[in-house]
Amino acid sequence: MKSEIISVGTELLLGQIVNTNAKYISLKLSTIGIDVFFQTNVGDNPKRLKECLEIAVKRSDIIILTGGLGPTMDDLTKETVAEFFDLPLIEDTDSKLSIENYFNKSNRKMTANNYKQALFPEGSKILPNEIGTAPGCIFKKNSKIIIILPGPPSELIPMFDNYVYPYLKNMSDKIIVSKVIKIFGIGESKVEDMVNDLLISSNPTVAPLISDGIVTLRITAKSDNKEEAENMIAKIEEKIKDVIGDYIFGSDDETMEYVIFNLLRERNLTLTTAESCTGGLLSKMITDIPGSSEIFKYGFVTYSNEAKHKMLGVSKQTLEKYGAVSIETAKEMAVNAKEIANADYGVSITGIAGPDGGTEKKPVGLVYIGLSYNNEFYVRKTLTMGVRQRIRLISALNAMDMIRRHILKLKIDL
Amino acid sequence: MKSEIISVGTELLLGQIVNTNAKYISLKLSTIGIDVFFQTNVGDNPKRLKECLEIAVKRSDIIILTGGLGPTMDDLTKETVAEFFDLPLIEDTDSKLSIENYFNKSNRKMTANNYKQALFPEGSKILPNEIGTAPGCIFKKNSKIIIILPGPPSELIPMFDNYVYPYLKNMSDKIIVSKVIKIFGIGESKVEDMVNDLLISSNPTVAPLISDGIVTLRITAKSDNKEEAENMIAKIEEKIKDVIGDYIFGSDDETMEYVIFNLLRERNLTLTTAESCTGGLLSKMITDIPGSSEIFKYGFVTYSNEAKHKMLGVSKQTLEKYGAVSIETAKEMAVNAKEIANADYGVSITGIAGPDGGTEKKPVGLVYIGLSYNNEFYVRKTLTMGVRQRIRLISALNAMDMIRRHILKLKIDL
Repeated sequence: MKSEIISVGTELLLGQIVNTNAKYISLKLSTIGIDVFFQTNVGDNPKRLKECLEIAVKRSDIIILTGGLGPTMDDLTKETVAEFFDLPLIEDTDSKLSIENYFNKSNRKMTANNYKQALFPEGSKILPNEIGTAPGCIFKKNSKIIIILPGPPSELIPMFDNYVYPYLKNMSDKIIVSKVIKIFGIGESKVEDMVNDLLISSNPTVAPLISDGIVTLRITAKSDNKEEAENMIAKIEEKIKDVIGDYIFGSDDETMEYVIFNLLRERNLTLTTAESCTGGLLSKMITDIPGSSEIFKYGFVTYSNEAKHKMLGVSKQTLEKYGAVSIETAKEMAVNAKEIANADYGVSITGIAGPDGGTEKKPVGLVYIGLSYNNEFYVRKTLTMGVRQRIRLISALNAMDMIRRHILKLKIDL
Repeated sequence: MKSEIISVGTELLLGQIVNTNAKYISLKLSTIGIDVFFQTNVGDNPKRLKECLEIAVKRSDIIILTGGLGPTMDDLTKETVAEFFDLPLIEDTDSKLSIENYFNKSNRKMTANNYKQALFPEGSKILPNEIGTAPGCIFKKNSKIIIILPGPPSELIPMFDNYVYPYLKNMSDKIIVSKVIKIFGIGESKVEDMVNDLLISSNPTVAPLISDGIVTLRITAKSDNKEEAENMIAKIEEKIKDVIGDYIFGSDDETMEYVIFNLLRERNLTLTTAESCTGGLLSKMITDIPGSSEIFKYGFVTYSNEAKHKMLGVSKQTLEKYGAVSIETAKEMAVNAKEIANADYGVSITGIAGPDGGTEKKPVGLVYIGLSYNNEFYVRKTLTMGVRQRIRLISALNAMDMIRRHILKLKIDL
């Protein structure tokens, strides 16, 4: 089954909002074997919306429209779609009542044009809207399935989950299962090289993607039954593990911070952070996780030499002789932070996030990451290309990767 | 000038990522009077990409493609576009060198398939990529302008701003000027109520939008000359200021952190942070700003009572009697942090970010934010609805809002 999504709203074309609806719907459809081949955003403009429908009916079996169901004059999706498919708009009594209800409950005054929200193309199955006043609908015409949904995600998501997803699930013969393998420490093209032979496979497919310093490989298998699909994925996953090895840190929704949180918690270990150029980003990422207080209690943000000396007791000689961006400073930061916080692990980050402050010897992107555990100390010297935000993020990820590797007894300084 | 954006990437159709590139480009184009009538997302599939190009050349003067410039086998945008427009791919020597440079600098091994990133449709103007290895390009064919940009926003945004935006600006006749007013401290619907009469204006238009706890009002004026458009905006802005007043903290690209950074720097004032439930988010946001070391030197992440006592000297009695989430703890955190860091301002955040840890008396979302300056102390008691991430973000914004209000001598505890 080929499908496409047409999102209607001039605010999309003006760049005032991001289209999260298309993402949400596509992700759900991918799990039931319905291919989304195109996502189109068009304005609240009947002529151009008709052009999109003209194109869509030629290439897709299922056309999902979002947006333009509001009460205002420029909300014309239903009217336009009905006209395109040559169907009259019929009033749905239940919808009319529930809209009237909605206004009574919220004691807001109902305007005449709210009634048009109760009109639907003839033969539609009505999709109730529990959140707002704009019901959706599904109808079939010329063997095409047309689905019309409201624009606000808070209204679209429950309507899609409760009515559209089950409806489409019944129609799909194939099951699609996918799994994401998460990789840190090697670049996308390197990963590509390593799994080259797998990338040409058509079922399961293996798709690489890089975002925020993490390379992911998404394995997607299509089959008649779930178990077979999962077996297909397991086989490919094995092959990937064979070549990528311990650069793989997690799968699916596991973030690096979530992975180290679990590793530490399972072992009753605690962590403290001593951050210079990341300025609290690492502790922020760790504490994004509910329950992180079990493994994280102290964080030191030492953004100046004075703070490194006063908060962490980094010696003035070290700072003068080697500078703040050095193995020596990274070591004293990590070791002393661990002592002060009485934690199992002390991790430190000191470097030049830029855009200014770089020198010939110490360029922007140079970051030292230190890890202290008992009497052991490890340091990773990294040179990250890119903007300040990226340099900071990659540094925080490196710090967590070092912890992960130490706990799992893997090679740490790369 | 009619334009459209074609974003290439199967990850978009699988719903793995949201298309923020189309939003960004559209927003920028709207400011120079170039209409974006369609945004299309298509997979890394030459056949379907060609279908999109077939449609695009019929209806648009400018076609902007994003994504699919990576080194991997499934990155085929340039190849497909070149074939569609019947142009050979030519190697660009400078691009080749800078790609080689990139790999040398980051001492990563360059793979053969990286070289294809230096190939461009014949006659292209090359758009350098300062962040990654994928340059973009612009070329004209049959009176159409074709622009090809990389997919990662961190690479696309600087390339668009530095090369594409100025290029297109020169071609546009109409002038559209827009200004964004940024508001913190009142909800979107409240703001809408307050500026209700302005929202129906058609030129300038006023569009409200909420994101990450910040309400924005975008004023957009269309005119033949810049000055007139700016005057139209100024008039509306005055009206907005009259009703919204000091809830307005900035405009356009100014973030809250950028605003307080400037307020502090202009006055040679410094700030230190003492964070519990935000776990470093506030110091992270402040240090996102290049040069923040001028105003920020120390940050304390005291995620446990022990840390509050040991790092900041919050008295055990206070913690026992009032608890960590209390005015009293917030006060000792802010005051002591300021003393230890010898800063002008000490700001503290302590609360319950959830999802667990809430009680009848102290529910999830309850956060105390303290501000210490000389012998003055202010506290804001907030109760934020929503998920952990939102509660943490709103708390950090409140802390910065309090600093802004103190510096500007505005009412602080709301």
